[in-house]
Amino acid sequence: MYIINVKDVKELKTPHGKSIRWLLSKEIGAPNFEMRYFEIPQGAEPSEDKHPWEHEVFVVKGEGIVKAGGEERKVRSGDAIFIPPNEPHMFLNVRKEPFGFICVIPKGCEDYVKEKNE
Amino acid sequence: MYIINVKDVKELKTPHGKSIRWLLSKEIGAPNFEMRYFEIPQGAEPSEDKHPWEHEVFVVKGEGIVKAGGEERKVRSGDAIFIPPNEPHMFLNVRKEPFGFICVIPKGCEDYVKEKNE
Repeated sequence: MYIINVKDVKELKTPHGKSIRWLLSKEIGAPNFEMRYFEIPQGAEPSEDKHPWEHEVFVVKGEGIVKAGGEERKVRSGDAIFIPPNEPHMFLNVRKEPFGFICVIPKGCEDYVKEKNE
Repeated sequence: MYIINVKDVKELKTPHGKSIRWLLSKEIGAPNFEMRYFEIPQGAEPSEDKHPWEHEVFVVKGEGIVKAGGEERKVRSGDAIFIPPNEPHMFLNVRKEPFGFICVIPKGCEDYVKEKNE
């Protein structure tokens, strides 16, 4: 097995200023999907994403807003969120406290975020 | 998108008394992997599992012990755990507070837990 605490994982930045930590990635042997931890600070630049793979998200800290599929919803700790493939989506923080969540994607889909920072 | 809070998901029981909630499953359209929330109460019967698919786990509540790959490790909130395919593993709670974690698996691998309870 492999165990790591979120605090011990290198923090990278997405192009729009979100904090991303790759918790369980193909680099440690994950065969099918990769788990990351995101934090969105207050005031981070909103950015819409759209791509042919899904997100499975679980909120662990703070509150946020998710815009996707023509809806705008407030989310909080304990909420699980599914963003289907090809659905435009945006995650926002409107509070002072960071908005933190786990986000799982199919393996290899977002390697650009690893490469850009290393 | 699809959003649900862990408190609003039906609680099922595994054969060994663990609480399981299917947060994001193939039934709501997840194409590749499924996200569940487990809670292990104090005194739950220990049970070893072994299967040809992996687990990607994130601890969100309490503390527990994971035995896998010849190791025994204490885990707590914020720990991410990877159990490779075919590695025997056991999750235990040795405290009064429930030990709660997210566990992601490839789609369709553990349907027996859904069927057994519905």
